Amino acid sequence: MKLGKVTGRVVSTIKVPSFEGIKLMLVQPLDERLVPYGVTIVAFDTIQAGVGDLIYYETSKEAGRVLETTMNPCDAAIVGIVDAMEVEGAK
Amino acid sequence: MKLGKVTGRVVSTIKVPSFEGIKLMLVQPLDERLVPYGVTIVAFDTIQAGVGDLIYYETSKEAGRVLETTMNPCDAAIVGIVDAMEVEGAK
Amino acid sequence: MKLGKVTGRVVSTIKVPSFEGIKLMLVQPLDERLVPYGVTIVAFDTIQAGVGDLIYYETSKEAGRVLETTMNPCDAAIVGIVDAMEVEGAK
Amino acid sequence: MKLGKVTGRVVSTIKVPSFEGIKLMLVQPLDERLVPYGVTIVAFDTIQAGVGDLIYYETSKEAGRVLETTMNPCDAAIVGIVDAMEVEGAK
Amino acid sequence: MKLGKVTGRVVSTIKVPSFEGIKLMLVQPLDERLVPYGVTIVAFDTIQAGVGDLIYYETSKEAGRVLETTMNPCDAAIVGIVDAMEVEGAK
Repeated sequence: MKLGKVTGRVVSTIKVPSFEGIKLMLVQPLDERLVPYGVTIVAFDTIQAGVGDLIYYETSKEAGRVLETTMNPCDAAIVGIVDAMEVEGAK
Repeated sequence: MKLGKVTGRVVSTIKVPSFEGIKLMLVQPLDERLVPYGVTIVAFDTIQAGVGDLIYYETSKEAGRVLETTMNPCDAAIVGIVDAMEVEGAK
Repeated sequence: MKLGKVTGRVVSTIKVPSFEGIKLMLVQPLDERLVPYGVTIVAFDTIQAGVGDLIYYETSKEAGRVLETTMNPCDAAIVGIVDAMEVEGAK
Repeated sequence: MKLGKVTGRVVSTIKVPSFEGIKLMLVQPLDERLVPYGVTIVAFDTIQAGVGDLIYYETSKEAGRVLETTMNPCDAAIVGIVDAMEVEGAK
Repeated sequence: MKLGKVTGRVVSTIKVPSFEGIKLMLVQPLDERLVPYGVTIVAFDTIQAGVGDLIYYETSKEAGRVLETTMNPCDAAIVGIVDAMEVEGAK
């Protein structure tokens, strides 16, 4: 999983049927010092994350499993909100 | 999922049998400010996206699930058209 | 899927049993202007692509599905030959 | 699999149900000379790795298999601790 | 699949149960001119590749299929040894 910050929402009417009713959030990837890197992704949210939350997300073909069904083509999902993080410097 | 813009079409006669009848579009990845990055990909389209549309797409082994069958080697599919996007700056 | 050009062949005698009888081609990734990028990969070929052909290929764990069997550890396969491509500039 | 060093822990209360009870560690990717690169990831730990350990980890949709169940959306897991490594220079 | 050179071995006692008895090799990715790039990975070896061998390897969630079982969290496996390679320059 990777660290990220929820930065917004996506509104979409026309989509594949298996995405109906799913909340889609914009997520900015963050490194361990919470510095942004890379590009914003669009992720499923089933844990009611809000804009500004520090979260960890998953990017693989099983991201759709947050819905407890496997038959959808989702590849990114927020899986949890970070309460605290203890980092030992490795650089 | 990632943001992208539909930039064209691919015409292909010789292909694996499971790709017969599938519409293949060229998609340019875009960041959250709609700035292009990376290289154009070839994606399945089952939602009738048109050239110029702002879409989000999926890239994983289950992209073929947009067809509601899993037995094809597709790794990229357009899953929805973006109506609106609310972005809070994270950089 | 991604665009690429077939640039050669790989000959391999010692390999995992599920790769027996499979044609392995070298593929150079190309962008939408057909400019090479990245490194050459080794891909399954089941559509009789030839050296020099402009193709699109797939890279995921289900690349082996071009064989209509899922039990092999293939992660790259040529899925079609490009006849024509219509590109609208996005950059 | 890739080499990495365990650099910390993540505490998370709100998360998808399938992550309940799982230990989440921060892992810094390392190259073969143990030089850090890339960004820290969040990985499942089922082998009781500790902060500072040199480990190898896996990043794919089946990382959840360390739990001997496949129905969770985990994409990164520590799979072993490195005791010794014999490297012949390739650069 | 990608080209690589076997550069060493990893010794690991503490690991997930499904990795017991598996030979783990260090593999340096190589481009089509056999120039190293990227970072060394840790891969399953079931074909008795030796240090110094030019091989092709697979990196996906089904790398564990070299064992003819799917229930392990392996994401990289050596699948064959390269005997010969015919490359047409694409750059």
